[in-house]
Amino acid sequence: MTTTPHPLPPPPLDPPERLLLGPGPSPVTRQVLDAFARPTLGHLDPHFLRAMDEVRAMLWPLFGARPGHGRVLALSATGSAGMEAALVNLLEPGQRALIAAHGVFGLRMAEVARRAGAQVTVVESEFTHAPDLERLQAEAQRSQYAVLGIVHAETSTGVLQDLAPLRAIADRAGALLVVDAVTSLGGLPVEVERHGVDACYSATQKCLSCPPGLAPLYLSPRALARTTARATPSQSWYLDLALLEGYWGSDRAYHHTAPIQMIYGLHEALRQVHLEGIDARFTRHRLAARALWAGLESMGLELGVPTARRLAPLTVVRVPEGVDEASVRRRMLEHHGIEIGGGLGALKGRVWRIGLMGAGATLSTVERCLTALGECLAAHGFTPRADGLHAARAAVA
Amino acid sequence: MTTTPHPLPPPPLDPPERLLLGPGPSPVTRQVLDAFARPTLGHLDPHFLRAMDEVRAMLWPLFGARPGHGRVLALSATGSAGMEAALVNLLEPGQRALIAAHGVFGLRMAEVARRAGAQVTVVESEFTHAPDLERLQAEAQRSQYAVLGIVHAETSTGVLQDLAPLRAIADRAGALLVVDAVTSLGGLPVEVERHGVDACYSATQKCLSCPPGLAPLYLSPRALARTTARATPSQSWYLDLALLEGYWGSDRAYHHTAPIQMIYGLHEALRQVHLEGIDARFTRHRLAARALWAGLESMGLELGVPTARRLAPLTVVRVPEGVDEASVRRRMLEHHGIEIGGGLGALKGRVWRIGLMGAGATLSTVERCLTALGECLAAHGFTPRADGLHAARAAVA
Repeated sequence: MTTTPHPLPPPPLDPPERLLLGPGPSPVTRQVLDAFARPTLGHLDPHFLRAMDEVRAMLWPLFGARPGHGRVLALSATGSAGMEAALVNLLEPGQRALIAAHGVFGLRMAEVARRAGAQVTVVESEFTHAPDLERLQAEAQRSQYAVLGIVHAETSTGVLQDLAPLRAIADRAGALLVVDAVTSLGGLPVEVERHGVDACYSATQKCLSCPPGLAPLYLSPRALARTTARATPSQSWYLDLALLEGYWGSDRAYHHTAPIQMIYGLHEALRQVHLEGIDARFTRHRLAARALWAGLESMGLELGVPTARRLAPLTVVRVPEGVDEASVRRRMLEHHGIEIGGGLGALKGRVWRIGLMGAGATLSTVERCLTALGECLAAHGFTPRADGLHAARAAVA
Repeated sequence: MTTTPHPLPPPPLDPPERLLLGPGPSPVTRQVLDAFARPTLGHLDPHFLRAMDEVRAMLWPLFGARPGHGRVLALSATGSAGMEAALVNLLEPGQRALIAAHGVFGLRMAEVARRAGAQVTVVESEFTHAPDLERLQAEAQRSQYAVLGIVHAETSTGVLQDLAPLRAIADRAGALLVVDAVTSLGGLPVEVERHGVDACYSATQKCLSCPPGLAPLYLSPRALARTTARATPSQSWYLDLALLEGYWGSDRAYHHTAPIQMIYGLHEALRQVHLEGIDARFTRHRLAARALWAGLESMGLELGVPTARRLAPLTVVRVPEGVDEASVRRRMLEHHGIEIGGGLGALKGRVWRIGLMGAGATLSTVERCLTALGECLAAHGFTPRADGLHAARAAVA
């Protein structure tokens, strides 16, 4: 048990400026931070209700759905609650769920589905590998499932899964298709309508460049119908999507008190996305990643995932032999003010995870990261083959 | 389906300054709002972990527990999730829960317990009445229960329930005692240790004067043991208190990405509480309420709850005959910039709820409220007997 040894109260917080290049939170612009400091409104104030409507309007195209198609909202909790909301609303106890797990977050989907009382079949793949679609297809042929769950952008492994083939597999299983877009929404096309996704959830603190605290969520018309046609109410009252639609929709029925400042922040973050343009934002993420990859490889580092399935917003880098993973990360933070992530699950201690998300996806960020990483590696026993800067710039010239 | 008719993105939000005198959110000071705008840190950054420790240290005395006694933390969701966390962690499917319900939030406890798979016995009392402790005692004698749940300060009715007699009843039932302190924490003594409370949850947007978004929660050593000794894991992964303790405690194991800005805001709000002094804050809430009550009664309005069980932070006022409840509230908001609340559940349309919480609990707030209310009542067909100001000042002179 840690308690502060000082008398109460402690001094005001004075958090240092960090360059956030881990798996999230990502860098937050001053405009978004300032939005958090605007005067608090009541959760039923007409001005606040309009802000909610505007958040909805800005989310639809980001998910790749026409305005008014299905439902979008922002859950009053972080991305993990988005996962839980999707699963506990679409599964009833005893129903079957088929989960493709190729990392920590796929495994978490399986765990959450189990806690919802579902019979869960997990098709597991090695970390940094793609989900095994053939085995998934075979399972879908063998049984009927209420839900097929898969992660679009695996934050633990840096692997991107193409969504195109999944609808056909879900149809074979008779399942609703649930997609984790925590690390893709706002940085990569998600295209729920095109790919026939039924439920898709994300988080604010990744490619949207908003601090953590909300989970944007999309439901297809079919998934929405499932939430209202249940035999038993969802096990979670707080995450009950039928009740939440009563507040986000035209009824405006009180359910819980919405986190006002978080909605202000998300509103401004989404404004930044639309001011830039969704496609321009995707291009920026792709270019920044290409620069980082070229830089890291020219330094003599090995990337964890082959190009074809590599995630632009989050790059997995293998820790060179003999280098202490945590010491490098600590030096990055303490000497350079840069946060990068360590490995999770099976990759713990073996990789770093470098995020170029939202406002962080720029060439200048890449340059700052490569320079600092070179210094930290040299201080911990690995001499980079090059400084990485030339290769990074050349990759996007 | 409401969508904004304007092209994207909409202009930046420009929320008006409101005086928040509803059932929450309560007025937020500039210091707390500014804390929200501080640079975002990673959820495992040493500076952020220290902020979490300081939040814990400041919460303990507010709950009325010695530092280190049981556990305190702030859940990454709003107050209603605090209720859900307490119940889904302390109840296993099939176990019995005894809930005293004297308002909307007691009834919600029963609903949440049912969704957790519990067999729920509700001892219901009329809205604005106190819980019926004799019937509660009789039920406790009849059966054993895993949990006894009760609301300390009923936000829907303005009724305060003395916690002193409850431990004995819970002991009779063999139950853990779960207390909803959403509208009392920070405004009234809660005293969990003295009253033998096992789980107590609250919200940030009431007497703590922080925007909504977190649920402070206390667990007794016994309740903590129950969360780790379950036969089955809690149905909620997101609200699993055993996993959350892994992050808030010394392990610092990643569970979910904490809502960084919300913790900054709560940290500053708790600092304000301790700078003022906990007892001084309680006194201020009591005095402001006394002034409001005297003012309202001198105007010829009737309060909904007798003095003996009346809640200082939230006053229920009966709508005079012939006055349209919603029109008065709308005029308060539009002409005076003051938010007050309407009735909930059985009291819908019949009462107003006026909150004097946190920074709002001052004589000058009371005076502004009474003056505006007098004008709005006169505009809607009720002529106050007096302006209320003299009586309000006299009550605290």
